[in-house]
Amino acid sequence: MEKSSEATWNGYREEKKCNDSEDGRVRLQNPHLRNMSSDNLYHLGVGTHTHNLKEMFGDVKFVCMGGTNQRMETFARYVKKELGIQFPAGTDMYDISQHSHRYCMYKVGPVLSVSHGMGAPSLSILLHEILKLLYYAECKDPVLIRIGTSGGVGVPPGSVVVSNGAVNGLMKEELEMHILGKVVHRCTKMDQKLADEIERVGKRHLPYMNIVTGKTLCTNDFYEGQGRLDGAFCYYTEDMKMEYLELLRSHGVVNIEMESTQFASMCNQAGVKGAIVCVTFVDRTKGDQVCTPKSTQLEFQERPQQVVVAYIKSVLGLLQET
Amino acid sequence: MEKSSEATWNGYREEKKCNDSEDGRVRLQNPHLRNMSSDNLYHLGVGTHTHNLKEMFGDVKFVCMGGTNQRMETFARYVKKELGIQFPAGTDMYDISQHSHRYCMYKVGPVLSVSHGMGAPSLSILLHEILKLLYYAECKDPVLIRIGTSGGVGVPPGSVVVSNGAVNGLMKEELEMHILGKVVHRCTKMDQKLADEIERVGKRHLPYMNIVTGKTLCTNDFYEGQGRLDGAFCYYTEDMKMEYLELLRSHGVVNIEMESTQFASMCNQAGVKGAIVCVTFVDRTKGDQVCTPKSTQLEFQERPQQVVVAYIKSVLGLLQET
Repeated sequence: MEKSSEATWNGYREEKKCNDSEDGRVRLQNPHLRNMSSDNLYHLGVGTHTHNLKEMFGDVKFVCMGGTNQRMETFARYVKKELGIQFPAGTDMYDISQHSHRYCMYKVGPVLSVSHGMGAPSLSILLHEILKLLYYAECKDPVLIRIGTSGGVGVPPGSVVVSNGAVNGLMKEELEMHILGKVVHRCTKMDQKLADEIERVGKRHLPYMNIVTGKTLCTNDFYEGQGRLDGAFCYYTEDMKMEYLELLRSHGVVNIEMESTQFASMCNQAGVKGAIVCVTFVDRTKGDQVCTPKSTQLEFQERPQQVVVAYIKSVLGLLQET
Repeated sequence: MEKSSEATWNGYREEKKCNDSEDGRVRLQNPHLRNMSSDNLYHLGVGTHTHNLKEMFGDVKFVCMGGTNQRMETFARYVKKELGIQFPAGTDMYDISQHSHRYCMYKVGPVLSVSHGMGAPSLSILLHEILKLLYYAECKDPVLIRIGTSGGVGVPPGSVVVSNGAVNGLMKEELEMHILGKVVHRCTKMDQKLADEIERVGKRHLPYMNIVTGKTLCTNDFYEGQGRLDGAFCYYTEDMKMEYLELLRSHGVVNIEMESTQFASMCNQAGVKGAIVCVTFVDRTKGDQVCTPKSTQLEFQERPQQVVVAYIKSVLGLLQET
C-alpha cells in the first residue's frame, strides 16, 4: 500500500476547506448523497424514508454529545429545566434512537442530546449520521459540543477544560485515517472563537469553577495509550511515564480523552462550529486510578453540563450579561 | 516524535510472545500490578477491593463479547437455556456492570457475556479490564470470543464468518498504537486451531448455515474507512470503491468490522485463545446501506450466537458428536 499524506491519488482529491454556505445550512462534501432515493441513518434508528427529518429536527441549533446514554439523558432533562421548556400535557421526551440499540438521542427544543460511546470510531459513526441528519433537516448554523470526562495533566480533579487544540499521540494536530487502502491526514484545529466564548461565559456565570483552556490529547486506548501503569500490559517504568506526562505539559496539553481529534476533524470537514468541554476526574501526574468517590464523580460530571448550558442560554439571550 | 516499529527505545522493550503459564492461568505482562494495593476495574464497575473476584469469576471458561448491551443480554439468556443452567428460586441474572454505565456484563455458569461498544478503542478498554479480571480471578485456560455483525465482501447477507486473520486498512496483520509518544506495532495473527474447531462444530451442527472462514478487515470508521459512498463525506467515485473491494477480495478478505485487529492483538499479548465469529448484514459489492428488514437482522444476528454456543457445548461435552 502506498502512502499519501496529501490525499491526492487516482483522481481522489480532498478539498481542504468547506465553503461556508450562504444561508448557514450544513453542506456535505458527498455528491453521492444527491443520487440516493432514501438514506437510512442506521445507527440513529431514523431515515429519510421513514421520518420527516426537517419537521422533526429543522429547529436544532445545538447538538451536545457525551459518552454514556445515562449522562445524555440527565443532560436533556437539565436543559429542559434550565431553558424552561414545556412539553404538552401527558408527554415526555423519549430516546429517539432506542431501536438502534447503539446510541441514545433526546430532543429538547433547539438542543439535541446524544451519546457517542467511547473512542474515536464510535464517535465517528455518530457524527457521520448526525451531520447527515442536520443536512437533511436543513438546520442553520448548528453548533456541536462534546461534553466529556477526561484525565487531567497538572490540573486538579474537577477542573473543566475547554479545548483550544486536539492533538494525537504523536503531538500532531491531525487525525490519521485509512481510506481505500491509503493513509489520509486531516486537520484537527479547533474553533478558537467558540472556545473563548464558552470559557468567557463559564467564568462569568460559574465563578466558583476551575475553568481552563488548553490542548487535549486524544488516544485510542485508556491504558497504554495514556501512559497508565495499571493496564493489562505495561512495558515501561514509572519514570518513563512521568517523563511522558512532562512532555505533554510542555506541549500545552492539560487533559487526555479519546474522541477530540475525530470530533475536531469532522467539524472542520463539515464546516460546522465545534467545541469540546470536559471535566477531569484525576490528575495523571499524581496517579492513574479514578479514586474520587462516585458521588463526587457525579458532581464533577455536572460541571461541563453547567458550562455548556450557560453558553446555550447566553446565545439564546436567556442570561443577564450585566 | 521519533518512530520505532521495533518498540525498543529508552529501555522500553516489548516481549514478542507470552510464555504459556504452566497451570493455564492468565499471566499479564505488567509488573506494576503486583505493587497495587487494590485495582478498580473502573469501566466494569468491579474491583479487587470491593469484590471477591476469584469467588465471583474463578470458574469462567468462556468470555463472549459483542457490540450492544441488548445483544449480550439476549446471548446470556440463550446460553442459560442451551446449557440448562438453573439459578436458585427467586433469583435471576443481572448486569454486574450496570453502575459503570459503560458496558454490560452477565455471568451464566462458565460463560461471561459482555458488551464492548463500537470500535477498537472501546473494545480495548473492555479487554484490558476483562484480562485483569481473569487474572485476579485466577481463571484457567479461558477462551475469548467476539460475536459480531459485519459487512460482507462477496458473501451473501446472513453468512457467518469465522476470522482466520485480522488486517488493518493497509492490509497488514498488525495494530498500530501510540505509546508514550512512540509508534508501536503489534501482531494480529489469529488462533487457527480455534477458528478451525469453531468452523468444524458449526458446519456439523448447523448445516443449513453458510459458515465461511477468511480474513477480516478492521477499520476505524463505518463510512469512509469501509469505502462506503453514503457517509457525510466522500471524495471518491463508485469505481474507486469497487476497485478497493476487489483489492480486499484479492487479499482474502471476506468481511469488514471495527474491532478485530484490537481483539486479536490483545489476545496474542495476553497469551489467551481468541476467536471472532461475525454475521454479515450486507454484501458490500452489491451496496452500502443495511436494507435487510429488522426481523431478518434479528434472525441473522442469532447465527453467530448459535455457532458459538454449539462450540461451547462441544467443549463441555454436551453435544452428540456421532
